[in-house]
Amino acid sequence: MPTRGEPRVTTSPPPRGDLFDPNCPTRHLLDRIGDKWTAMAIKVLAQAHPDEVRFADLRRRIPGISSKMLSQTLQALVADGLLTRRVEATVPPAVWYGATPLGLSLDQPLAILRNWAESHMAEIDTHRRTSQAT
Amino acid sequence: MPTRGEPRVTTSPPPRGDLFDPNCPTRHLLDRIGDKWTAMAIKVLAQAHPDEVRFADLRRRIPGISSKMLSQTLQALVADGLLTRRVEATVPPAVWYGATPLGLSLDQPLAILRNWAESHMAEIDTHRRTSQAT
Repeated sequence: MPTRGEPRVTTSPPPRGDLFDPNCPTRHLLDRIGDKWTAMAIKVLAQAHPDEVRFADLRRRIPGISSKMLSQTLQALVADGLLTRRVEATVPPAVWYGATPLGLSLDQPLAILRNWAESHMAEIDTHRRTSQAT
Repeated sequence: MPTRGEPRVTTSPPPRGDLFDPNCPTRHLLDRIGDKWTAMAIKVLAQAHPDEVRFADLRRRIPGISSKMLSQTLQALVADGLLTRRVEATVPPAVWYGATPLGLSLDQPLAILRNWAESHMAEIDTHRRTSQAT
């Protein structure tokens, strides 16, 4: 069971999504959060919490990501309420990102999936090579 | 810690992946397993285990998936060693899929992520609507 980062003040629970319902936004949500760039951005910002991290530092700590892909990933996570974005009026402006309580609550589920992928990578890579050879 | 479905006979552990290494196949693996169709296929086949499920039944139990997308998803999961594929020589031939121990071990990590997505879907949907309106 996931832990909740925030106390609930509503008396009835919010509607629950259903991945198996084609009309439910859970499907698109799962694709966004299951993305490798999201997994890395959430990990870096959850580890930095409560500090924020600048765009340029994020790019350095997510090796291989392009500026454009990092922008798109962060923009989607801000729109989802998982990250905060703060523009500091320096010259040039500095843009800081931080994890919200909702973003922090995603860190553990993603860590479990990342751990599974890292643990089984070698075994799966062997399977793929074998199946491509036949 | 994930449980291992199979006893290990090697004396040294297999090499571990690193998501933050741009050259590591863990990145592609995470994108494949974080996909919504993979999440649904693994759930259906893990629940059916030890029974196999026919292609047509899988398609019915994953509402909204096209034949082509289901084929691609299953083919990738077979190549990764997460599913078995068995062709029965009937007329027309029946194709059966089943979860391997490796595929079964992915069910719980995906269930945790799916549960997070379904639990927070309403909250995130509200965020997105608000951010699109501004």
